[in-house]
Amino acid sequence: MSSKQKIYLDNAATTPIDSAVIEVMSELMSKVYGNPSSVHALGRNARVVIENSRKKIATLIHAAPAEIIFTSCGTEANNMALRGAVASLNITKIISSPIEHHSVLETIEELKKNNKIIVDYVDLDEYGNVDVTSLEKLLVESEEDTILVSLMHANNEIGNMLPIENIAELCKKYNAFFHSDTVQSMGFYEFDVRKFEPDFITCSAHKFHGPKGVGFLFINQKNRIKPLLTGGSQERNMRAGTENIHGIAGMAKAFELAHENMDKYNKHINDLKRYFMEQIERIVPEIKYNGNPKGNSLDKLLNISFPNSDMDEMLLYNFDIDGVCVSGGSACSSGSNMASHVLKVLQTDMNKPAIRFSFSRNNTKQELDYTLDLIKNWYCSNKSVKL
Amino acid sequence: MSSKQKIYLDNAATTPIDSAVIEVMSELMSKVYGNPSSVHALGRNARVVIENSRKKIATLIHAAPAEIIFTSCGTEANNMALRGAVASLNITKIISSPIEHHSVLETIEELKKNNKIIVDYVDLDEYGNVDVTSLEKLLVESEEDTILVSLMHANNEIGNMLPIENIAELCKKYNAFFHSDTVQSMGFYEFDVRKFEPDFITCSAHKFHGPKGVGFLFINQKNRIKPLLTGGSQERNMRAGTENIHGIAGMAKAFELAHENMDKYNKHINDLKRYFMEQIERIVPEIKYNGNPKGNSLDKLLNISFPNSDMDEMLLYNFDIDGVCVSGGSACSSGSNMASHVLKVLQTDMNKPAIRFSFSRNNTKQELDYTLDLIKNWYCSNKSVKL
Repeated sequence: MSSKQKIYLDNAATTPIDSAVIEVMSELMSKVYGNPSSVHALGRNARVVIENSRKKIATLIHAAPAEIIFTSCGTEANNMALRGAVASLNITKIISSPIEHHSVLETIEELKKNNKIIVDYVDLDEYGNVDVTSLEKLLVESEEDTILVSLMHANNEIGNMLPIENIAELCKKYNAFFHSDTVQSMGFYEFDVRKFEPDFITCSAHKFHGPKGVGFLFINQKNRIKPLLTGGSQERNMRAGTENIHGIAGMAKAFELAHENMDKYNKHINDLKRYFMEQIERIVPEIKYNGNPKGNSLDKLLNISFPNSDMDEMLLYNFDIDGVCVSGGSACSSGSNMASHVLKVLQTDMNKPAIRFSFSRNNTKQELDYTLDLIKNWYCSNKSVKL
Repeated sequence: MSSKQKIYLDNAATTPIDSAVIEVMSELMSKVYGNPSSVHALGRNARVVIENSRKKIATLIHAAPAEIIFTSCGTEANNMALRGAVASLNITKIISSPIEHHSVLETIEELKKNNKIIVDYVDLDEYGNVDVTSLEKLLVESEEDTILVSLMHANNEIGNMLPIENIAELCKKYNAFFHSDTVQSMGFYEFDVRKFEPDFITCSAHKFHGPKGVGFLFINQKNRIKPLLTGGSQERNMRAGTENIHGIAGMAKAFELAHENMDKYNKHINDLKRYFMEQIERIVPEIKYNGNPKGNSLDKLLNISFPNSDMDEMLLYNFDIDGVCVSGGSACSSGSNMASHVLKVLQTDMNKPAIRFSFSRNNTKQELDYTLDLIKNWYCSNKSVKL
């Protein structure tokens, strides 16, 4: 199977760029090259591209343009929110969960070590859902503290979704700041920041068919935080460095496309997910879902533990060899088949191989059938399978 | 004059992307979209693009590939070097100059405030050149300290160039770490890091006809510093966040082109600069150069104070209206005609309007003639000019 014929089911790691996005970017690259900080016509042209992109994105999540700060990725946006909140909002305690993305977990651990921030983690239920009662208990106990709650909207490994509006409400009740890593749900979910009023939410363009190297941080206008990168008045003094104008315009285009067709795309992806679940449950009834795919969960993602067989260690590679691109654990940062911190926390049987399948609007039922056929061949004709 | 006919003489702010770079990027955007952290074929394809880019760039400055850390811009690279050095190398004192780029100056001031770092500034001569004797004096005086010297290679406002090899030698003599902001000279100067052994040097692709949103930090292999962005093992654990593969490949292509034709391009730019100087000195003999353009100075840049006239405040806008894109002060961060910190330090007569002309390999003698004609019309036919 050649490179062109790959079946790409790793869309939680990254997505192919939409051709309309490539077109916008390629055109801009040859036509708009001024430095947006320059006052002359070519600088102003570049400034217009950025500010129009900001307006488009802000409108789609019901934010004010000034609340959108462009960054180089979701990781930078999460770092900026957490570090900026600690540096500027007198935070003394962070409440988070043990299954956040590394860009949140590692940053929190650093803030604990270097800035003497107290860190508490909420309890999770057996599926990995945040135990809201445990969060409220921690908030009640921390009356004396200035608290930042950081809980991701959709988990990048298992797909569980947080009841983000309820959590925001709870944070408000206890005067806690609320940051949510929304990198996996941006472009797949209708955010209305005026309704649920988070303090910080984050975005990475390449998760919804936009370019890599660009994202944004939403900062609620009531908060003023210090920038992470200093030395320039760009982004209203919030993010120094010449703006990635082509990336920003590409992100705005991808965000627009994702929202224009959100219901259609989400239905398609949900159909794929349900079909895959029905089929795989029939083919290998011994599989176990990690997370809660039948509950409040991302449509695009399925994390499945397979029964043991003599190819356990080779399962991920076998998919690759047969032309199906999937992920074992989170590809966002591991770069290897390293044991996932999320599955560990959930006390998943780590002896069974786990695969993350993640779908996009580009996938077809035929691609899933090909993938399911592979699985069928491996698990139903292999006499050495120990079910 | 339409947008297409603009004469772009603001190449120190940013440069047009080379068409060969756009081609590489556009092709990659449609063909290579995997997450370089994914282990499957499409992830590996993306990884190959990044590592080949790293090798190309490293080879051109005689570095090891592991010494090149990709960042989102020059400002991030400068922030990372300074903040990382302070966090990891027990730095107690920073020696810098008052005419560094804001990304260095502001970051140093923050480190002074928050990390109790002592900051000393070297003396400058009347042209803005670093007084090497004053640097050595500061190094001698600071025997007890662990020192980081941060001095830019080529000033972005006046073009002065540091004798970077000598400064590196001096730093070695006094066991000081040496960071140089090389953003303006990268792609225009043959760096051999094995020869002069800096600790940190920085790069921004859009200064040499590459894309915006990407740069790199060279970290000498003998140094280990903490990352600025945490939460992912990308860039050998030095810079978390999914890599901007298209930007990185675009930068490598631009860097390659700049080096393949460096002598030719530099000669062309030097010819333009010399021609412009000869002509403008003839037309308006009362002009004053800021910096030292006839000494060790960037070929691409001329910073000129004009004699007073009744259009002083309008000079920058008049260039714009007549289709010539130039900068007043540094466009990198001011975004306005704000008084330049560099010109202030040099005790330039701030009542005279200063213009930064900066050339590239794309400019022609005809474009300079058009610009010189404008100047001639304003200064030689305007009876109200007070010379």
